[in-house]
Amino acid sequence: MALLSCPRRHPSVHLLILSAYALFLASLLPILDGLELGGDGLYKEILRDETVLRLKELGKISDGEGYLERTFLSPASIRASGVIISWMKDAGLTTWVDQMGNIHGRFEPANSTKEALLIGSHMDTVIDAGMYDGSLGIICVISALKVLKVTGKLQRLTKPVEVIAFSDEEGVRFQTTFLGSAAVAGTLPESILQVSDKSGTTVQEVLKLNSFEATAAALGQVKYSPESVGSYVEVHMEQGPVLEALRYPLGVVKGIAGQTRLKVIVNGSQGHAGTVPMKLRRDPMVAAAELVLTLETLCKEPNKFLTYDKECGCFTEESLAGLVCTVGELLTWPSASNVIPGQVNFTVDIRSMDDKVRETIVTSFSRLVLQKCDDRLVDCAVEQKHAAAATPCDAELTSQLERATRSALLSMKAAPPGGRHTGGETPVLMSGAGHDAMAMAKLTKVGMLFVRCRDGVSHSPEESVQDDDVWAAGLALVNFIDQNAVAPASATAAES
Amino acid sequence: MALLSCPRRHPSVHLLILSAYALFLASLLPILDGLELGGDGLYKEILRDETVLRLKELGKISDGEGYLERTFLSPASIRASGVIISWMKDAGLTTWVDQMGNIHGRFEPANSTKEALLIGSHMDTVIDAGMYDGSLGIICVISALKVLKVTGKLQRLTKPVEVIAFSDEEGVRFQTTFLGSAAVAGTLPESILQVSDKSGTTVQEVLKLNSFEATAAALGQVKYSPESVGSYVEVHMEQGPVLEALRYPLGVVKGIAGQTRLKVIVNGSQGHAGTVPMKLRRDPMVAAAELVLTLETLCKEPNKFLTYDKECGCFTEESLAGLVCTVGELLTWPSASNVIPGQVNFTVDIRSMDDKVRETIVTSFSRLVLQKCDDRLVDCAVEQKHAAAATPCDAELTSQLERATRSALLSMKAAPPGGRHTGGETPVLMSGAGHDAMAMAKLTKVGMLFVRCRDGVSHSPEESVQDDDVWAAGLALVNFIDQNAVAPASATAAES
Repeated sequence: MALLSCPRRHPSVHLLILSAYALFLASLLPILDGLELGGDGLYKEILRDETVLRLKELGKISDGEGYLERTFLSPASIRASGVIISWMKDAGLTTWVDQMGNIHGRFEPANSTKEALLIGSHMDTVIDAGMYDGSLGIICVISALKVLKVTGKLQRLTKPVEVIAFSDEEGVRFQTTFLGSAAVAGTLPESILQVSDKSGTTVQEVLKLNSFEATAAALGQVKYSPESVGSYVEVHMEQGPVLEALRYPLGVVKGIAGQTRLKVIVNGSQGHAGTVPMKLRRDPMVAAAELVLTLETLCKEPNKFLTYDKECGCFTEESLAGLVCTVGELLTWPSASNVIPGQVNFTVDIRSMDDKVRETIVTSFSRLVLQKCDDRLVDCAVEQKHAAAATPCDAELTSQLERATRSALLSMKAAPPGGRHTGGETPVLMSGAGHDAMAMAKLTKVGMLFVRCRDGVSHSPEESVQDDDVWAAGLALVNFIDQNAVAPASATAAES
Repeated sequence: MALLSCPRRHPSVHLLILSAYALFLASLLPILDGLELGGDGLYKEILRDETVLRLKELGKISDGEGYLERTFLSPASIRASGVIISWMKDAGLTTWVDQMGNIHGRFEPANSTKEALLIGSHMDTVIDAGMYDGSLGIICVISALKVLKVTGKLQRLTKPVEVIAFSDEEGVRFQTTFLGSAAVAGTLPESILQVSDKSGTTVQEVLKLNSFEATAAALGQVKYSPESVGSYVEVHMEQGPVLEALRYPLGVVKGIAGQTRLKVIVNGSQGHAGTVPMKLRRDPMVAAAELVLTLETLCKEPNKFLTYDKECGCFTEESLAGLVCTVGELLTWPSASNVIPGQVNFTVDIRSMDDKVRETIVTSFSRLVLQKCDDRLVDCAVEQKHAAAATPCDAELTSQLERATRSALLSMKAAPPGGRHTGGETPVLMSGAGHDAMAMAKLTKVGMLFVRCRDGVSHSPEESVQDDDVWAAGLALVNFIDQNAVAPASATAAES
């Protein structure tokens, strides 16, 4: 602490030219701030304490009472945008909101022509969400850039660095994912404007209600040209149990599983619960129940349905291992206890690391739906709402993230709670969850860093990430940006 | 038509005493009005045309747009009450609304001490209902009493006759049936005031909002003393396929099936649809699906689960035949396509003519729920929301209704569309659907008349009853009241 005020005790330093004085102070900043922040270069106050406080603050901004829900451009999302913008400004970034409601915070070095490094995640949530999914990736990078600001490194950036808080990744409101990142990547079709939520409100109407232009042209303006972007990086909680099992706080991601979302509609014969004999019923509820169990069997024991081909390597134990299928939503109509429903519809979410496995499961399930509906004399339809191929991450970015991670963990002397990690290589994972990086991969090369969570639980208020793991992720990001986009202090001095 | 104005052409009839003149006119009314209404004593304009018009009018009073929904004391129910009151007044009845929102219309003969004949049905509906369920029984009896009024028979009633439009039979809003008729029968517990609907509003709050007293004492005032009531009769659409199959427009009911309503709650482990391996899931959706199918199998093939005992006659083919089980409502939480639900709950409706069969099915299903939930490591609970024993109808009332029906159908010369009925005995049915008569059986002896419907469809906008069958039901009611509660014209003259 004695050193802290040392420069201020030198009133004898009289510099005549203000710009030179400023330059001198800026060159001192890395030392000063490193010391102010604890002197150990770990920036605990920003990367851990403030980041965790901000996670909690954002986690309270909800459309639901007593639980977290923040969907595309909902009132809570608008309030959250304001808070995120203020944090971006605090990190020294220039901010704006694009025509799809994405929040941007950018630092543009003077005379920069280099391709930008984009780092982001999503600000929307599922219903009854946890506070880390999406938010962690936004707040961690804002904190990392704040560290670069207070250490003076922001001024020495060799390329533009931009944080993006995407407006929609979960797709809860419009049953279609990546409204935000797909718009930035330029792959969002104009037809998206006409898609409706449950209340019948279209994307276009929601945008207009929030004073956006809501035209195809405005949508086009959101798109980044591939030439202007060098890479996209995303930090995200793992949402799975691997890192916890390995007792390792961080991991790099080699790829993201492909995903298909279906809607299954079952139409039967609505009637009185007391008067239609069991054998004469065309009940869509029991048909839907049978289909839910069919999907479960198909994904739990795919070998029973798919042909294993040792020669071609198709449908190996490994390729089938990551297959997961979920019915998350099921609606009955008219939904009264004494009425045999007339219609039941439900969602299906199918994911696999192996695109061929996923596509075969989708085909097999669709075939079984029609077959079983025929048997029960109900009318069924299967609509594909979303399909995305598995996305590989860029090897070079992954390698840079791995080095940044190793360096961060080495510099943190005490092992984080939850157990001393085993040392050795940073774990390399596949992601079962979709991420904005999937959409951004259409625009540029992508890399991802995963942060350990408790029990692999996500999309639940039980989501939990250790404060020290949040800290480790922030430090890895500081290292990564430093290595990737900051010129050495001497180089800046020479340039100026 | 020449006869119609005949009495008006007799100005030479000079009666000095007004009361005597009125008496004379009253004695002529049956002839006059019978003639004015077509001269054939079939009262087509009132019993068919006006009744059908009123059914359509009431069928449009809905809380939903584009479909019929009218639940306990909803805004549409309040509007419907006003319309029903106006029709009751038009039929010459004194009207009032009791403290549970039931609408009463009564004709009280002078100096009457006899027990009242109550005739009613319910004014509430399911969601996406048809226009006949409940409404038919209310409007038919109002029309029948209007015929008695215009024929002067109302003045000759030997006992009070009262129409009741019950405020709740379907139980859609509070998941508990017979709010209206159980209050009149005096079997509604005070605790009902604290039961909540989905929005958290209690019965008490709904009553207060509509300016009712909403106290236990007020609830007590709704109750009729058994001494004041002689019998209860209800006309209802069949809601099943039997009369249509027999090509018979009307049938009498020997009894109403017993009913149990359950709520099954399944709690699992909420999580991300992409990251929790299939084998590690505790998914309440697939567990619920399995339970829905278990219930179906149990009720479709009860012999597989219940022990058939030839000696005691338990669980015979006949006793098992009428067993029906329904899951009408299933809710998932948090209900998003990319989230493994944390909770799924669903309703179960079990009905049987045989109380022992129903109770055994409830016990067997509850046992299977716990067993299957254990297997899937999810936590389940089964709550009983409603249970009612099968209700036999009174043999004498049923016999009177049968005679009234036979007489009505004989007097209608042309067979109603849908085929000439076979003649012979009026069909005697069991009712798979619950009716207010079940609640009223706790107060007095009950009888029911069923009206043929199309394809056995009910609780659906596809509900359909032929206009001529509506007419036949009205005429049977006129006959029944006439036989049951109207003194011969000569007797009235003698009394006066």
